[in-house]
Amino acid sequence: MKLKKSDISDRVVQRLTEYLSILKEVRKYEDGINSIELSKIMDTTSAQVRKDLSTFGEFGVRGKGYDIEKLIEIIEDILGINKVNNVIIVGHGKMGEMITSNSKVLGKGFKIVGVFDKDKKKIGTNIPDLKMEVKDVEVVGEFIKSSSENLETAILAVVKEQAQIAAEKLIKDGIKAILNMTTYKLELPKNIVVVDIDISARLQELNFWRLNIGSKED
Amino acid sequence: MKLKKSDISDRVVQRLTEYLSILKEVRKYEDGINSIELSKIMDTTSAQVRKDLSTFGEFGVRGKGYDIEKLIEIIEDILGINKVNNVIIVGHGKMGEMITSNSKVLGKGFKIVGVFDKDKKKIGTNIPDLKMEVKDVEVVGEFIKSSSENLETAILAVVKEQAQIAAEKLIKDGIKAILNMTTYKLELPKNIVVVDIDISARLQELNFWRLNIGSKED
Repeated sequence: MKLKKSDISDRVVQRLTEYLSILKEVRKYEDGINSIELSKIMDTTSAQVRKDLSTFGEFGVRGKGYDIEKLIEIIEDILGINKVNNVIIVGHGKMGEMITSNSKVLGKGFKIVGVFDKDKKKIGTNIPDLKMEVKDVEVVGEFIKSSSENLETAILAVVKEQAQIAAEKLIKDGIKAILNMTTYKLELPKNIVVVDIDISARLQELNFWRLNIGSKED
Repeated sequence: MKLKKSDISDRVVQRLTEYLSILKEVRKYEDGINSIELSKIMDTTSAQVRKDLSTFGEFGVRGKGYDIEKLIEIIEDILGINKVNNVIIVGHGKMGEMITSNSKVLGKGFKIVGVFDKDKKKIGTNIPDLKMEVKDVEVVGEFIKSSSENLETAILAVVKEQAQIAAEKLIKDGIKAILNMTTYKLELPKNIVVVDIDISARLQELNFWRLNIGSKED
């Protein structure tokens, strides 16, 4: 696959995840889809769909559209979720628990291999769905080093006040990618990837568009 | 405030929420900030910062930068969170519980006024933090109509399979904005605003950038 990296923006990658989600719905009813049909569901133009997908290679057949199964496979390959990516969860409060008790929310390609907290009362408690115990966050470095698989991703679910310190420690321990579930805006080295799940920010965004309805454009 | 609506993209609104989050951190230490300092924290250019903020009016003073408190106030006004926006939560599973037991995650400007579920075992149970009971989703229409305040926003936290049906019913009942916490890609009329909180999609995005590290650009 020829990745023309300079062409790839945050928004393209976000849209790739949307295409994937849509294709997985559509495949229940159809084998193929064309850019016009895809663009309608995505609420964008067919030119945008073709441009987005061509960033990663030439998939469609002119006049015939895309083979859904094949396109799903290709997007999953691009996103690296056609194989298992190990993740740890740091912080087992309400947010961490929501994930560990409902680990399907992570979707295909991700496996929780460790859950950590600093609270002595939580350490050692069992997480039935994952068949593992909450570990002491002090041993997270050891855990990452002794992990046989490549372990580079952490879901950060600590309290806001601990977010920056916890993230810096994780990076020192070898973590390269952080899904930040706190509302704290982390400041980390350039080579570390961070994506924020900020419910409050998304709600603000929603509120803006509700108050300025009709002005939304993609 | 002169809103040049045609200039506003999804990304600008997303960045506004990021500016707000940063400014609220910075105000602990500083009274003022200029576009260069803001751009460094945002990992973008100072021209981009000035462009983003000028979309909504002329705030900065040339050579002096922005008054942080004033800028926070203005952004909160734009996002409509300087007053209370009522929201209901539909679906009180793990995701709904994570929010109701930790309602601070919604941030300033949002108030949970009702929580609904279809599960007879959940209906009538108490939510201590909110001092309210889970109500039968059957009465949500009635609830919205009898609500003295403007109630147009719902947080959708039902199971994926119920998402589309539940959303359509909410719209019929008067809801105009949905924060979609399911992984289902809702198909709704154009005048309805939807923002997705899709943990799995954000994790895919994170994984892409981890695997293609160094290629990320804003």
